[in-house]
Amino acid sequence: MTEQGKSSNVVWHHATVTRKRREQMNKHRGAVFWFTGLSGAGKSTLAHDVEEKLYQLGHRTYVLDGDNVRHGLCADLAFSDQDRKENIRRIGQMARLYVEAGIIVLTAFISPFRSDRDNVRKICGHDFHEIYCICSLEVCESRDVKGLYKRARAGEIPDFTGISSPYEEPEAPELEIDTESHLDECSKRVFEYIAASVELR
Amino acid sequence: MTEQGKSSNVVWHHATVTRKRREQMNKHRGAVFWFTGLSGAGKSTLAHDVEEKLYQLGHRTYVLDGDNVRHGLCADLAFSDQDRKENIRRIGQMARLYVEAGIIVLTAFISPFRSDRDNVRKICGHDFHEIYCICSLEVCESRDVKGLYKRARAGEIPDFTGISSPYEEPEAPELEIDTESHLDECSKRVFEYIAASVELR
Repeated sequence: MTEQGKSSNVVWHHATVTRKRREQMNKHRGAVFWFTGLSGAGKSTLAHDVEEKLYQLGHRTYVLDGDNVRHGLCADLAFSDQDRKENIRRIGQMARLYVEAGIIVLTAFISPFRSDRDNVRKICGHDFHEIYCICSLEVCESRDVKGLYKRARAGEIPDFTGISSPYEEPEAPELEIDTESHLDECSKRVFEYIAASVELR
Repeated sequence: MTEQGKSSNVVWHHATVTRKRREQMNKHRGAVFWFTGLSGAGKSTLAHDVEEKLYQLGHRTYVLDGDNVRHGLCADLAFSDQDRKENIRRIGQMARLYVEAGIIVLTAFISPFRSDRDNVRKICGHDFHEIYCICSLEVCESRDVKGLYKRARAGEIPDFTGISSPYEEPEAPELEIDTESHLDECSKRVFEYIAASVELR
């Protein structure tokens, strides 16, 4: 699309590199794969494992998780209900922009509230895929990779999902995966789901 | 990096697809090219024109501008001083995340305040390149592509940069470009600067 400037003989160009053209170059569609589940359910592990598989096939991905979001884009947010909601909203908007850039986005956030996840679904539309990592509290707590459950049990972390704050299960996730064991198998299943969804070529 | 989970015989994987590996795949470094200047100075035009050139060479880019940010990631922000500042901060953080994904980010925002741009420079470090689009108010106003100057002169838009709000010129931009005319030439210069900066291969 071009239009003639009113003076100085300048032709004004607008965006010509569309999402579709980026997707053609990348040989896959952009999409968001939203891993949700308790802390320790394997969300990040799966996201990173699948990302490695996709990279090795030459595809474009990015993982959004607490590590790269909480200290940057969402550094101004604390843990009040309002701030948690805004945190998930921004991540959803960010994910949408990556999708526009033709990228396969994998997000790994507990995102315990249905309304927040549904909000992201609205933001991203058909590009949104909810992946529910199902793992019992008992197993998640026994893993306790970051020592958070221990601290939550000691009362050092308020509103900790599964301990002192609820986790609202997805009602109709695009994919459910039992992550209590055999994460290699889980990763294969997730990869196959993603490959089909984004039409890997 | 892997560590053994405390139970259920699970090996925990962390991020293995690093920025460096993405850059190897993309055949260029990630970086932010921050176009700043008055409304009508040609920021978006240049960004999109250069993006087209980069796309045709098979490179990965994204343009952030008012069109894709104001109604999404920054939809909760108005135009108070505080909100404008937060707007630029978020765009800076977003740009940083794209850079981590190995992408060449082009941003087109007036971003009139030096302190805001310097804040983005802090966020993005050596990956930040400030491109000052120099164009007189007279020429920008005569272009008035979006009819904003007319509305600002009529008092319909408060705090409009160049009319009722200051533009603070960059003190040491990485690139200065005279955008009063010959935008095709400008685009070539910007492209050459970017190609050298991101080590296009």
